[in-house]
Amino acid sequence: MTSCEQFDFLPRPALPSERMRQQAEARQARLTKPSGALGRLEQLACQLAAFTERLDWLPSRRAVIVCAADHGVARQGVSAYPQAVTAQMVLNFLRGGAAVNVLARQMNARVLVVDAGVAAELPEHPMLLSGKIAHGTADLSAGAAMSEAQAAESLRLGMRAFERIHAEGVDIVAVGEMGIANTTAASAIIAALTGASPAEVTGRGTGIDDARLQRKIEVIERALRVNQPRGCDTLAKVGGFEIGAMAGVMLAAAAARVPILLDGLISTAAALIAAEFAPEVRHALIAAHRSAERGHQIALDHLNLSPLLDLDMRLGEGTGALLALPLVEAAMRTLQEMATFDEAGVSEKEPSC
Amino acid sequence: MTSCEQFDFLPRPALPSERMRQQAEARQARLTKPSGALGRLEQLACQLAAFTERLDWLPSRRAVIVCAADHGVARQGVSAYPQAVTAQMVLNFLRGGAAVNVLARQMNARVLVVDAGVAAELPEHPMLLSGKIAHGTADLSAGAAMSEAQAAESLRLGMRAFERIHAEGVDIVAVGEMGIANTTAASAIIAALTGASPAEVTGRGTGIDDARLQRKIEVIERALRVNQPRGCDTLAKVGGFEIGAMAGVMLAAAAARVPILLDGLISTAAALIAAEFAPEVRHALIAAHRSAERGHQIALDHLNLSPLLDLDMRLGEGTGALLALPLVEAAMRTLQEMATFDEAGVSEKEPSC
Repeated sequence: MTSCEQFDFLPRPALPSERMRQQAEARQARLTKPSGALGRLEQLACQLAAFTERLDWLPSRRAVIVCAADHGVARQGVSAYPQAVTAQMVLNFLRGGAAVNVLARQMNARVLVVDAGVAAELPEHPMLLSGKIAHGTADLSAGAAMSEAQAAESLRLGMRAFERIHAEGVDIVAVGEMGIANTTAASAIIAALTGASPAEVTGRGTGIDDARLQRKIEVIERALRVNQPRGCDTLAKVGGFEIGAMAGVMLAAAAARVPILLDGLISTAAALIAAEFAPEVRHALIAAHRSAERGHQIALDHLNLSPLLDLDMRLGEGTGALLALPLVEAAMRTLQEMATFDEAGVSEKEPSC
Repeated sequence: MTSCEQFDFLPRPALPSERMRQQAEARQARLTKPSGALGRLEQLACQLAAFTERLDWLPSRRAVIVCAADHGVARQGVSAYPQAVTAQMVLNFLRGGAAVNVLARQMNARVLVVDAGVAAELPEHPMLLSGKIAHGTADLSAGAAMSEAQAAESLRLGMRAFERIHAEGVDIVAVGEMGIANTTAASAIIAALTGASPAEVTGRGTGIDDARLQRKIEVIERALRVNQPRGCDTLAKVGGFEIGAMAGVMLAAAAARVPILLDGLISTAAALIAAEFAPEVRHALIAAHRSAERGHQIALDHLNLSPLLDLDMRLGEGTGALLALPLVEAAMRTLQEMATFDEAGVSEKEPSC
């Protein structure tokens, strides 16, 4: 079994400032609204002030990092789409025609696509970071998806992707992915790291029918039996190159005090991997939405995260993550810009007796 | 009992175009994503294309209309705050210090405040439409909250507010309110029009304790017993001036094919009133969020509306409505801007057998 020692190169997540959290909470209590009336936005503002160590933090410079790779397990017929779609969609990202592009334009977020292991040659492009580790993983239902060296390489690639974005200036980063069959890998990770059964965490991905869903569950059961993934070796045994890259993005961002917006099932599986290496990464994570994939809530619960949106989406790419950006901005702006009771001359709550 | 005839002056809501809905659905099916993968956004885009009769509609010019008034029932001790807070908060709106101002700036929405019956003199202000019907309603637990003529006046005031915004150009309108004790009126309306019991629909408003909550439920039970509100007379018997104004805004906007973002409990009670006059108004309504007030979901269910956000908010003012604007924009932009499978050269789903 792999120990975690070989992943010593991973950066340590920053810890939140309790002093700053208390300052944020104290200010919330003086704003012209009933206490708690902004609900989740108030908790979010306090989390972000504590993690960024700034009451005046705003998610102004935004980026979405979309990690792409192929999966050997696709040959088991677990997806509704052929493997070629991974590369085709990466080209769609580079041309600006995918949902993630549309939402990134709306939200004023830069897009960086990372080729972590797409099973096709891709052109050079200013939006593309080429870091192809292999032409897809090995079939995780027949043995390890990748070697331990490849797992480390995928994490380092994610760190490099974040550093590229960070060097240009960034206040918040969303993570997304593309990879035919990657809900199979993500479900296997979630089962391995939460203890839930494959049947509980496996969903229909891009939209498979009952027969394929049953096959997908069996493939995941076999993968867990064959590989016996545990802790830090889970990424190599049943993961994916894009999943390792996303975990690398998260650990690098968390170390730089840059909050991370999770997307759906796959990015949350990557967060579970990141949390195996460094549990403190959770302080940097924002669960943007709950996807329609059934394993997602189980993974979020394990991370003690509560999603902001619940729109029955299951697209991936970072689309759900981007949609939460206005809520993050609203949480901080209300904390920063609202008048206090004193400033506005508004009467406070009457004593209840 | 009042008949609905005296409200004949109300405009008729526009009806959605089924042809345009089908065009939107057909385009959704060709976009580069698994069918249904954008979840609620897809349904929302189809609703909006049908209602506005435009595939290229966008919520570009935005406004929030915040209707304010006082309530005679405040004297029954149903709120945690003194009545003076209604006027104090209106002044806070006019100075730009309230949560609704912060979010309106973020979302690039104009703010129009309507004085429908605040129990204090208010200064003239370019953001304020003065239409004070009285210095607050009568105590609805002792008799009708207002006369039938006043109910009609409140509806006309809302129509005038919308016309002012519409004349300046508007693509979407959010509704919000301010009025100490108005969750009592809203809960009474919801009980009267949905058949739910006062205990089921009554919540803690700005944050009352158990003793006040019990008193509030009893006050609402008394209001229903004394007034026996039914259908079109509900507004006069247990409503509020700002609630009538909001219903007037909705009916005028729906007639002009301008979609309406509902806020929380009170605006949804106003939507129930509007739907009593003209059930077709539902096609124009978007439920922005589910508030923490327990009667809200019951009112939304009665209107067959499903909220986009669920953030445990209970502030009112239009804050929840404004937060959904980016989701409305995202729904339309993905429909309009995403590449189709053909355009992008992406393979479609494999046959499942």
